[in-house]
Amino acid sequence: MSGRLYVVGVGPGDPELITLKAARVLAAAPTVAFFAKAGRRGHARAIADEHLTPGVEELRFDYPFTTEVPLVDPRYLADMGLFYEDCAGKLSRRLAAGDDVALLCEGDPFFYGSAMYLYDRLVGRHPTEVIPGITGMSGCWARAGAPMTHGDDVLSVLPGTLDEDALVARLQGCDAAVVMKVGSNLAKIGRALARAGLVERALYVERGAMDGERIVRFAELDAVSAPYFSLVLVPGRRGPR
Amino acid sequence: MSGRLYVVGVGPGDPELITLKAARVLAAAPTVAFFAKAGRRGHARAIADEHLTPGVEELRFDYPFTTEVPLVDPRYLADMGLFYEDCAGKLSRRLAAGDDVALLCEGDPFFYGSAMYLYDRLVGRHPTEVIPGITGMSGCWARAGAPMTHGDDVLSVLPGTLDEDALVARLQGCDAAVVMKVGSNLAKIGRALARAGLVERALYVERGAMDGERIVRFAELDAVSAPYFSLVLVPGRRGPR
Repeated sequence: MSGRLYVVGVGPGDPELITLKAARVLAAAPTVAFFAKAGRRGHARAIADEHLTPGVEELRFDYPFTTEVPLVDPRYLADMGLFYEDCAGKLSRRLAAGDDVALLCEGDPFFYGSAMYLYDRLVGRHPTEVIPGITGMSGCWARAGAPMTHGDDVLSVLPGTLDEDALVARLQGCDAAVVMKVGSNLAKIGRALARAGLVERALYVERGAMDGERIVRFAELDAVSAPYFSLVLVPGRRGPR
Repeated sequence: MSGRLYVVGVGPGDPELITLKAARVLAAAPTVAFFAKAGRRGHARAIADEHLTPGVEELRFDYPFTTEVPLVDPRYLADMGLFYEDCAGKLSRRLAAGDDVALLCEGDPFFYGSAMYLYDRLVGRHPTEVIPGITGMSGCWARAGAPMTHGDDVLSVLPGTLDEDALVARLQGCDAAVVMKVGSNLAKIGRALARAGLVERALYVERGAMDGERIVRFAELDAVSAPYFSLVLVPGRRGPR
């Protein structure tokens, strides 16, 4: 009798943004699994901490890369594929032994979460349940006081890794936008926002709802690159209707 | 000394999808405000129920329309504008008297939430704090077991009220999509999905994470219209990488 894999969204940054359901599942989980950068505690693990039972068994998955490797690099896909296979194997053995496992995911598991790569490998082989979480972008726009989508607005969520022309085309085709994965793409994103006529509306959010949070109008930003936990918000139509 | 306006996301459907922060704010709120359809209890109010203190003061805002009026109808914008002005006035008087008010919002307040129309009118006049919530779409894709966005996927969130050509163009310009406001737009959405070659990937979710939930492949759907609480998910690239 297989254990159940719970994929648990634990909220972005602020530990209080976890759901009651996630907290309940974590309190009952005999085993917790999570990704972390080598040498770090792991954001999701830190957020979950106060909800876990003493003596919980931990499966820690250290990302094989410590710096950003471009997603288009074939090395990245191959190495990450092997990494996820290995993690899924470890989870599967634990589940096959009958233990429930809570796999942590910062933000929402099915929205750019690493946990999806394990879910994709394990669904159908073990019972699964996914507990949605507050997305990083929701955490950021709440902190920025920026209502994003009213009425019939179209929202696009764009990775900053797109090339400049693709960013411009997609920014022009929507009312509101979120640009994720800003990092070293900051300058290119700035050029795309300018070409789409959106610099004045755009906000830059760094470490939203975390220590060291910084929220400024994009037009006032003078940096040339940004940390990983940063995004750009382009709110849709503004003001009372 | 003005009270503080808390705009509180209370999760979509499943009452356990409320955050610890929202639960804490609701337990301390002397006044709770919420929208509801005339004659109904109000979804957000029902979800919040177990967290409110006995004797909490209630400000109920009945929507002026009981059936769907097209957003493009000038009557709709004018009447809704008056309605929101009136609600904002009531909130402002309560806040000016020094009371904190928790304004409920099903899902995430800044993601197509009615509460934004009051926030837009009151921000700058009173202290505000926005507590993000699980969006309806996150609740639905978790229940559907449908990982939505991997890696560099572009996600578009589209209102089903767009005309067919606009839907097709935007569906073709993204990797993953969510179509909201399905209702009477179901047949048109189906034609747009077919033209974009996406019918086979699409899922239909009705009343996600609520009583009476129904999740089917869009291709298997034989209805010609859908209830308000329904949406279409087009997951991005699938399977292990």
